[in-house]
Amino acid sequence: MKPVDPKVTKVGFIGTGVMGNPMATHILNAGYELYVYNRTESRAQSLVDSGATFCETPGAVAAECDVIFAIVGFPPDVESVFLGEQGIVAAAKAGSIIVDMTTSKPELAVEIAKVAAVKDVHSLDAPVSGGDIGAQKGVLSIMVGGEEAAFEAVLPLFKLMGANIVYQGPAGSGQHTKMANQIAIASTMIGMCESLAYAKAAGLDLETVLSSISKGAAGSWSLTNLAPKVLDGDYAPGFYVKHFIKDMGIALESSESMGVATPGLTIAKTLYDAIAAAGNGDCGTQALFKAYAQKG
Amino acid sequence: MKPVDPKVTKVGFIGTGVMGNPMATHILNAGYELYVYNRTESRAQSLVDSGATFCETPGAVAAECDVIFAIVGFPPDVESVFLGEQGIVAAAKAGSIIVDMTTSKPELAVEIAKVAAVKDVHSLDAPVSGGDIGAQKGVLSIMVGGEEAAFEAVLPLFKLMGANIVYQGPAGSGQHTKMANQIAIASTMIGMCESLAYAKAAGLDLETVLSSISKGAAGSWSLTNLAPKVLDGDYAPGFYVKHFIKDMGIALESSESMGVATPGLTIAKTLYDAIAAAGNGDCGTQALFKAYAQKG
Repeated sequence: MKPVDPKVTKVGFIGTGVMGNPMATHILNAGYELYVYNRTESRAQSLVDSGATFCETPGAVAAECDVIFAIVGFPPDVESVFLGEQGIVAAAKAGSIIVDMTTSKPELAVEIAKVAAVKDVHSLDAPVSGGDIGAQKGVLSIMVGGEEAAFEAVLPLFKLMGANIVYQGPAGSGQHTKMANQIAIASTMIGMCESLAYAKAAGLDLETVLSSISKGAAGSWSLTNLAPKVLDGDYAPGFYVKHFIKDMGIALESSESMGVATPGLTIAKTLYDAIAAAGNGDCGTQALFKAYAQKG
Repeated sequence: MKPVDPKVTKVGFIGTGVMGNPMATHILNAGYELYVYNRTESRAQSLVDSGATFCETPGAVAAECDVIFAIVGFPPDVESVFLGEQGIVAAAKAGSIIVDMTTSKPELAVEIAKVAAVKDVHSLDAPVSGGDIGAQKGVLSIMVGGEEAAFEAVLPLFKLMGANIVYQGPAGSGQHTKMANQIAIASTMIGMCESLAYAKAAGLDLETVLSSISKGAAGSWSLTNLAPKVLDGDYAPGFYVKHFIKDMGIALESSESMGVATPGLTIAKTLYDAIAAAGNGDCGTQALFKAYAQKG
């Protein structure tokens, strides 16, 4: 497969963990020359074995490439990878495009775009939804903010990783859209767990209840996909509680700074904090049900 | 169309309003002999014109029929229609089956079943979901509690009104299932509205945001069906705010009596009460967005 833009041949990928590794693999498999960096080098080994070049710093990746992706952990990691001394922006070539796919702060995306623009580097914020399964299958939902021309240029690469790729507006808009996504999930999860907790206390058969309520006006992705896991006592991630807490923290901060009241999100964050404190941070988000567990 | 049980030929229907009228019409059209009662007689006129017999009291309906349905307003209406002096149970024939399709209190359903059993009358609680459109199309979701043999006997009639008909367990189980349904909806609506309010405050294009978030892990019936109405400023019901408040009130009372904590439901009820107090009781439930309206 040839890149649509024949000038883009060298692609960088920073952060080759559970999400980044399969995402970068799709790019490598499409025939691009891939440069990678990861804090823990061993997690990039499969890519190096397949022909990628490992670099010692994010900056070293950026210095080689036309388009540089990153998907790392928390906003401070994003800041360090993009704006640090050995970071992407300091080393990026004029005209190159840098893309943060981490779920991170909208205002940090705006700041990166501003700093990058000074160097004639184009920045996109492009957080994803769909989890490790979506990354492996190349069917992520990708929500993109930044210059539209840069989005169009990177679109052929996004298409290797995602299925629902939407340009949302100027820098920060991708992150804001992801926050809107997480805010919708937060209260929907509360609805799912309270509904199950109520049905359980009422002595109903939960599977039978789901057969009544999943398909109608109460229906949701959570009720269809996560409620059956709760019934099975299966709290394996899916999407980690600890990562959802990170996202909700950003969403709360961002909501507050914009003066948006989010009582549902606030409660969800409180309940998730509680179950994480009780040792469930590495469970999937369906573990919220544990906050509703009954005595006996 | 012949009834499956050849003994059931006379069917009663009490409450021929926006839901009951089309439900009763399906039964009449299937060839049953229909007896009806409604507090406001004129709202039963279309059924009478089509061959139904109007009776002066719920009891007068019950005295004639093998199966008697009711779908009325609030729990006190249910109590009066079923347990009142001129009510159904006082007049019902031994061996007949009485079915409350109102969304009402689970414990009232249990009480009706107990009182009915003394007279050898079988009682089902069978609240519905799907609204007036579902009633008109005969595709309601029907959640049924009571004796299973009575459920089986009434099933051919339920099938005239519904598409997803599920037996949930002993008396009260239908109402409890409906409460679980409403509890799931309550917080999902909060998630939808907070998400839209956040996206709006962030300056995003809401339609574009929905195209990113509706299909993935944030997806819900509400986001797919009601969020677009909010974007259009369309607050027509659908499902009335005032009726949802009634249901949430029952759910809260029932939760409390069972010791189930429902912080999400509590907030939803508070916000819906607020928008109803502001004059939106006759709007559709998507009017919850008004609780999140920004200045300016």
